[in-house]
Amino acid sequence: MKALVYHGPGKKSWEEIPDPVIHDPNDVIVRVETTTICGTDLHILKGDVPAVTDGRVLGHEAVGTIVEIGSGVSKFAVGQRVVVNCITTCGTCSYCRVGSPSHCESAGGIGWILGHLVNGTQAEYVRIPFGETSLHSIPSGLSDEEVIFMSDIIPTGYEMGVLNGKVKPGDDVVVIGAGPVGLSAMTTARFMGPRTIIAVDLDPFRLEAAMRDFGATHAVNSGQADWMDQVRSICRHDGADVVMEAVGIPPTLEAAFHLVRPTGHVANIGVHGAPVTLPIDQLWIQNITVTMGLVNGITAPTLIDLVEAGKLNVKPLATHRFALDEIIEAYDVFANAAANHALKVVLHA
Amino acid sequence: MKALVYHGPGKKSWEEIPDPVIHDPNDVIVRVETTTICGTDLHILKGDVPAVTDGRVLGHEAVGTIVEIGSGVSKFAVGQRVVVNCITTCGTCSYCRVGSPSHCESAGGIGWILGHLVNGTQAEYVRIPFGETSLHSIPSGLSDEEVIFMSDIIPTGYEMGVLNGKVKPGDDVVVIGAGPVGLSAMTTARFMGPRTIIAVDLDPFRLEAAMRDFGATHAVNSGQADWMDQVRSICRHDGADVVMEAVGIPPTLEAAFHLVRPTGHVANIGVHGAPVTLPIDQLWIQNITVTMGLVNGITAPTLIDLVEAGKLNVKPLATHRFALDEIIEAYDVFANAAANHALKVVLHA
Amino acid sequence: MKALVYHGPGKKSWEEIPDPVIHDPNDVIVRVETTTICGTDLHILKGDVPAVTDGRVLGHEAVGTIVEIGSGVSKFAVGQRVVVNCITTCGTCSYCRVGSPSHCESAGGIGWILGHLVNGTQAEYVRIPFGETSLHSIPSGLSDEEVIFMSDIIPTGYEMGVLNGKVKPGDDVVVIGAGPVGLSAMTTARFMGPRTIIAVDLDPFRLEAAMRDFGATHAVNSGQADWMDQVRSICRHDGADVVMEAVGIPPTLEAAFHLVRPTGHVANIGVHGAPVTLPIDQLWIQNITVTMGLVNGITAPTLIDLVEAGKLNVKPLATHRFALDEIIEAYDVFANAAANHALKVVLHA
Amino acid sequence: MKALVYHGPGKKSWEEIPDPVIHDPNDVIVRVETTTICGTDLHILKGDVPAVTDGRVLGHEAVGTIVEIGSGVSKFAVGQRVVVNCITTCGTCSYCRVGSPSHCESAGGIGWILGHLVNGTQAEYVRIPFGETSLHSIPSGLSDEEVIFMSDIIPTGYEMGVLNGKVKPGDDVVVIGAGPVGLSAMTTARFMGPRTIIAVDLDPFRLEAAMRDFGATHAVNSGQADWMDQVRSICRHDGADVVMEAVGIPPTLEAAFHLVRPTGHVANIGVHGAPVTLPIDQLWIQNITVTMGLVNGITAPTLIDLVEAGKLNVKPLATHRFALDEIIEAYDVFANAAANHALKVVLHA
Repeated sequence: MKALVYHGPGKKSWEEIPDPVIHDPNDVIVRVETTTICGTDLHILKGDVPAVTDGRVLGHEAVGTIVEIGSGVSKFAVGQRVVVNCITTCGTCSYCRVGSPSHCESAGGIGWILGHLVNGTQAEYVRIPFGETSLHSIPSGLSDEEVIFMSDIIPTGYEMGVLNGKVKPGDDVVVIGAGPVGLSAMTTARFMGPRTIIAVDLDPFRLEAAMRDFGATHAVNSGQADWMDQVRSICRHDGADVVMEAVGIPPTLEAAFHLVRPTGHVANIGVHGAPVTLPIDQLWIQNITVTMGLVNGITAPTLIDLVEAGKLNVKPLATHRFALDEIIEAYDVFANAAANHALKVVLHA
Repeated sequence: MKALVYHGPGKKSWEEIPDPVIHDPNDVIVRVETTTICGTDLHILKGDVPAVTDGRVLGHEAVGTIVEIGSGVSKFAVGQRVVVNCITTCGTCSYCRVGSPSHCESAGGIGWILGHLVNGTQAEYVRIPFGETSLHSIPSGLSDEEVIFMSDIIPTGYEMGVLNGKVKPGDDVVVIGAGPVGLSAMTTARFMGPRTIIAVDLDPFRLEAAMRDFGATHAVNSGQADWMDQVRSICRHDGADVVMEAVGIPPTLEAAFHLVRPTGHVANIGVHGAPVTLPIDQLWIQNITVTMGLVNGITAPTLIDLVEAGKLNVKPLATHRFALDEIIEAYDVFANAAANHALKVVLHA
Repeated sequence: MKALVYHGPGKKSWEEIPDPVIHDPNDVIVRVETTTICGTDLHILKGDVPAVTDGRVLGHEAVGTIVEIGSGVSKFAVGQRVVVNCITTCGTCSYCRVGSPSHCESAGGIGWILGHLVNGTQAEYVRIPFGETSLHSIPSGLSDEEVIFMSDIIPTGYEMGVLNGKVKPGDDVVVIGAGPVGLSAMTTARFMGPRTIIAVDLDPFRLEAAMRDFGATHAVNSGQADWMDQVRSICRHDGADVVMEAVGIPPTLEAAFHLVRPTGHVANIGVHGAPVTLPIDQLWIQNITVTMGLVNGITAPTLIDLVEAGKLNVKPLATHRFALDEIIEAYDVFANAAANHALKVVLHA
Repeated sequence: MKALVYHGPGKKSWEEIPDPVIHDPNDVIVRVETTTICGTDLHILKGDVPAVTDGRVLGHEAVGTIVEIGSGVSKFAVGQRVVVNCITTCGTCSYCRVGSPSHCESAGGIGWILGHLVNGTQAEYVRIPFGETSLHSIPSGLSDEEVIFMSDIIPTGYEMGVLNGKVKPGDDVVVIGAGPVGLSAMTTARFMGPRTIIAVDLDPFRLEAAMRDFGATHAVNSGQADWMDQVRSICRHDGADVVMEAVGIPPTLEAAFHLVRPTGHVANIGVHGAPVTLPIDQLWIQNITVTMGLVNGITAPTLIDLVEAGKLNVKPLATHRFALDEIIEAYDVFANAAANHALKVVLHA
């Protein structure tokens, strides 16, 4: 089959490799029909994730059809359409049993293995270990683009932003970063009845998208010197009930610490490469909660139900489309997302 | 009356000042029968709390008897014994209405006003604003020393440590710092059915007290180079379910970040004077929660019930006793707590 | 002043009585500008509430302006517009302190005293005991009709239906009874991101209103023999995640027990006059939760914020309007609500 | 092998039947070393559970050693000691994924299949479907009798009584019924810091056991006419915070409705054979929660950890011991538990 193979920092190619085969009784082989590229894939290509070694097929998001199942699999059958959960979950370890497969012990404490520790989804076929618990079925009538973002980015915004941030009716919610994950947090924050959803970004295009398609009630451009005052003036109290960080750099997380009101929540969603200063000398008295973590994907079935019910439309995340064998070009577009006005690029087989 | 008056950094005196009088209909005047000294009082004397100005009576903890009530007070009567809540709560603002009087709007967003923004409890008499909601009644049969620590330190350990840390049955709980507030966290953590309560301190005397009187199941001396490994080896998983910081300096909070297991909780209780480094580059993926805040005191009635029921014995916190007019000497002892093997010093009128 | 006075079962009159005066330092006198009639008022007139005695002014819902305050009141001032909370809350008893003023100890364990144990709001003026905690301020720009239902019915549907029922994203929610309280539950259930809101009633007019103005996604007429099968066929699982009873008779509550899925919630909102059979022989194994209770009104400030933010429009509840001195006629219309296509009748001074 | 086989109402025999074999890749065969008899087994023998048909091996509780595993099982190995969870859980259906295997869809919506829909544990060997998720490993050093009650009765008391009842520090807790399941609720309620645990039963022997071995702080004999007044007089408020029903008959559940205080919880644990009257005409205003359900067993690993840590001693439940082939005699003793002063009878192979 053809696959996008990593060959060390800066090097990747769309090349022929052997088809995946069933290793374990709980494996499932999926023919990839739709996939996409994650910011994490770009990090890997920069060499930021040393656990990814030469020869690895990248990618952890996909929609496809089951073509083979292991002898231990009874919940799924060949021919069934599924969404791949970006987190592989054994379903039996102490983390998976309590809804935290992001720390699944079966792979040594990390549930993210696809395109990381084992071959991933940017390929014509992919082997999914622990398939019964790591795939989601798709209701008939839903297109690939209606569910492809359930692999990772929509649950990431919802679980790490909205649920960790404990958004509740009447809250003022700030989302710093209106990229795909920030937009995912905004559109799912709508489910919790907030008073406001305040999108913050440097990019007017993204702020427009936030307001038009993802439920933001206000947009604030953080390129303006007084942007934090603008945010505060929108909030009912002195600061926001919930501030989500969806960028992954120290200044935005530090801004979150300054924007949250006493008794509020800072929910980090971003992937960070550097430590940050926590002003505990000011915050110790503020009765705030700070959360951070890797998505589990356990909410994907509910989110898919909400798509089917017409309550959640994630298709506007897909701004660019390519054929699967145009993936090198797709990476180029996504790597320059801002210049290309790209949110997510979608690849169809 | 006599009172302990602050006269700028390093200066205090036990001196005659006018008796407090009713200012507002919701005021209550309490004759102080027992009081104590808090670490915060020492900070004030160092000049670390600039809002405290020359002439202020210090102290925010007391047990006493009501001697006068304002016209708006109907819940309490003259002659009743009460515990003073260290947090003054109006009972009507948006923070007080949801159980967060630490940010009571009536004093500008801070519920701690006694011995800070208004005269405090280290005196023969004290005026308690919003007395109906800022005092707790005492069941008959309980001595002053059985309830004096309900003013502040026991609720602090319980609310900011145990409740914020979400201690639950089977948890491994680490408390860094076995001073009064850490010991308060330990003894109230017992109520949540943890598997272990691991006391960490440099002082063998405090570790012994933790094991003997406050429910610690293990003691680890943090003067040993491998102390973090010792803690981990006691825990069932790789790290603790809950780590409480009860010291207030960067190294101990940073240690907490390293000791918590994925999906665990870091509950800061300490009062900090410097920022700390949050290793978000390592922790973003760990699914942890970090909490911090000022006590509310709303759990004091329940904790007093538990004292009455024989389920909570806080008297071992009182290691030294003085007459109220020996308060200068008491400060000296408390300021050198370690050398004096002091936990809390208690002053009786 | 003029007031609607109860004179025993079946007897009421709009008559002259003395103006209310301040009794206690925490009292507030409000000039009633808008009031409404509750189903409970009809029960009282039938003689079903023996605690209401001859001479009592009825009514527990109002919007108005403060004309006098007691000496203990500092949060409110004369001239301020307020919503009366139907539950009077002392703010200091053990129930009020934990957000359950429906059982306020100051009136003997019942927070509902207006138009019940003391004179109520269907009058030109009303005395509100514990005014600081029993009134809500109104943001400028909101009309009386935008907030009048915050006195009782909207918080009732939200607190006893939506919050008690723990509605969450993706849920199938059934509301049996599309009268004012059922409609209040529906429109506030929207804040929790449900998959469906299924309105059930015998009256096509009310079902239409539910769909048009209150967020119902489906309407089922319970006059049809197979109505429970219809409800089940709309749900994703075998039964609903949450079933709210908003009628107050045994058959509808018993229907709720049959419609709820395993692990689901039955939230009773209705006021009942007869016991009901709980089929515990079938339900003991179903892992369900059943809740019931009197509104507290503690969510009214948040709900008012959501009105101001344009997220909640409760005005369609007001189907009929009268002048305050036409209240006898208004009672007639409301007593025949179905025939008159009435939801709530609103009286303006 | 030998097994206890059901042959219709009133008929059972200890007889030779074929050894169980692996049917499915996820099956595990366990050699039973310790088992026990549940009240449910007596119900089955009375013919009360028609789904149990002639030829079925009874029993759903066991400790033993794995002797064979299916090809899909990787978490467990032959030779490992395990506790059988009375609820069989597939780990992949929508109920199992959210911690509610009591309604596992793999067996048609019921997780209790052992000794019910498939052969059970009162035999020399038992086949456990979905073994990876339906067995718990045992820490070395723990005896069979220290963990046998983790199959069912201890998690039943804890999950359906203590967790559903939301017992919290300071609560007054009433447990009606001091049989094995009531005692299990009492001893695990200790983990939540209650003020009191009030045991209610007709049998002085059981009340003594409750006080001596299971953490009860008070015992009330319900044979006394004023027993409900006695219970109320022990409680701090007018009624209990949590009332657990652990008998399974209408009078005790109806008593629970009368003993619970406003805002409290009634947690049904008992297995009921008849409907009960819910006095909703009195309770609608009381703000109470009523829960009911079948155990899930998901807390067993935590409870086993607490046994290992010395925090939970369940051995006093075992009052009578028999060899496995004396099981007919053991049934006789257990069927007359009161006369025999029996709590649980334990059978050792």
